[in-house]
Amino acid sequence: MPSFRLTLEYDGTDFAGWQRQAAGQRTVQGTLEAGLASLVGGPVTLVGAGRTDAGVHAEGQVAGVRLDIRLEPAELLRALNVRLPRDLAVIGVEVVSDGFHARRDARAKHYRYRVWNGPVRSPLRARRSHHVPRPLDLGAMAEASGALLGTHDFASFQAAGSSVETSVRTLDRLEPRGESGAGLCFEVEGQGFLRHMVRNLVGTLLEVGLGRRAPSWPAEVLAARDRQRAAATAPARGLTLMRVRYGRP
Amino acid sequence: MPSFRLTLEYDGTDFAGWQRQAAGQRTVQGTLEAGLASLVGGPVTLVGAGRTDAGVHAEGQVAGVRLDIRLEPAELLRALNVRLPRDLAVIGVEVVSDGFHARRDARAKHYRYRVWNGPVRSPLRARRSHHVPRPLDLGAMAEASGALLGTHDFASFQAAGSSVETSVRTLDRLEPRGESGAGLCFEVEGQGFLRHMVRNLVGTLLEVGLGRRAPSWPAEVLAARDRQRAAATAPARGLTLMRVRYGRP
Repeated sequence: MPSFRLTLEYDGTDFAGWQRQAAGQRTVQGTLEAGLASLVGGPVTLVGAGRTDAGVHAEGQVAGVRLDIRLEPAELLRALNVRLPRDLAVIGVEVVSDGFHARRDARAKHYRYRVWNGPVRSPLRARRSHHVPRPLDLGAMAEASGALLGTHDFASFQAAGSSVETSVRTLDRLEPRGESGAGLCFEVEGQGFLRHMVRNLVGTLLEVGLGRRAPSWPAEVLAARDRQRAAATAPARGLTLMRVRYGRP
Repeated sequence: MPSFRLTLEYDGTDFAGWQRQAAGQRTVQGTLEAGLASLVGGPVTLVGAGRTDAGVHAEGQVAGVRLDIRLEPAELLRALNVRLPRDLAVIGVEVVSDGFHARRDARAKHYRYRVWNGPVRSPLRARRSHHVPRPLDLGAMAEASGALLGTHDFASFQAAGSSVETSVRTLDRLEPRGESGAGLCFEVEGQGFLRHMVRNLVGTLLEVGLGRRAPSWPAEVLAARDRQRAAATAPARGLTLMRVRYGRP
């Protein structure tokens, strides 16, 4: 029974997140499993690299699956895509070893958070960007970002009510940069992230960018290890999981 | 009663085109007029620069309107945008002379037609691009485009059943070019266009790009002045009205 690694692109707007839920909720995992089930004629269980929240997009989410099927990767890709809705597609398929685990084997993840920083909201960017009408100070946000890089206890930036074994994580990249027009984005990379961590980091940096807090403030929030200290979580629509990196198989 | 020129951005996916229609149809004009009516407390009639079809987007559509209202342009912009849905916004407001007519005074229009030319469809581009999975020959399409520039009778490229006084138009730019990744687009500029003209030009050039027709074929279609000769109309979702240009007031 061969194992496959699927690379996925989706517009998260109309999904209730990645994880399969109670009936009636349209999730990415549930939609993909239904497509795979109709292909192989029996139930299928996927393992995703990360559980994107409702409204979060992906250009390179990864899922692993074992399938009782004799198809070349390119055939599987085509056969699966015709069974998926317009807002979800498999953009890559590879055969992997039986031991492959999409979440545990992930070495690094790259997220991009998009902001539209024009004075007027942009309907054509509304699904994929968070609109911040007042001007953001890119330099101040870059200065604040530097102090958050490296290995730290990110308890201040995890979702309220989370219960993970440890909230220590390593942040390899946190970089605000300008895009075309009034667009800007935050590039965020690390081995793994706590729930809502990227959106809480961005929400906190935006306070600095708006001049409401000093560039030194996010480091103080980090040191406090207290969720109450960070700013509000930035909206899901700005976030895209760009890529999940694995070691050589 | 001051006259205003409104510049509009919209995601055309969920609109039944520009033009106000029978009740129950959600159109850009109808939605805008309703927003303006709630602002001024009475009925309002807009004149649009062009009637975009269902599914066509705009980054710079223009409409003219006379309003019995005492507001600065920036105030009108803000007051109107809070009354408009997420997929429609006014991105610019200017005071113009009473004689301004958004359609008759337009000097030039710029359209962009987007194609996603990767082997697999892209959910994040699906609302704004036409997916062509087989590789397109950009050079062949550029060669074919050159012969269509200038002033011609474009009867072969107008919507079937159109009844305009003349189908002579001047095409100033028709330029296929590569974008990032597997994206490409057609830049199309001219003083005015026949109904479906841009989408019919693109549909015909795509036949050349796919190698089904020679680069000399679109010029033959043009010379025939017969709608039956052109290729199928390219889908609306790829088309965006980028800008309408006016002379100095």
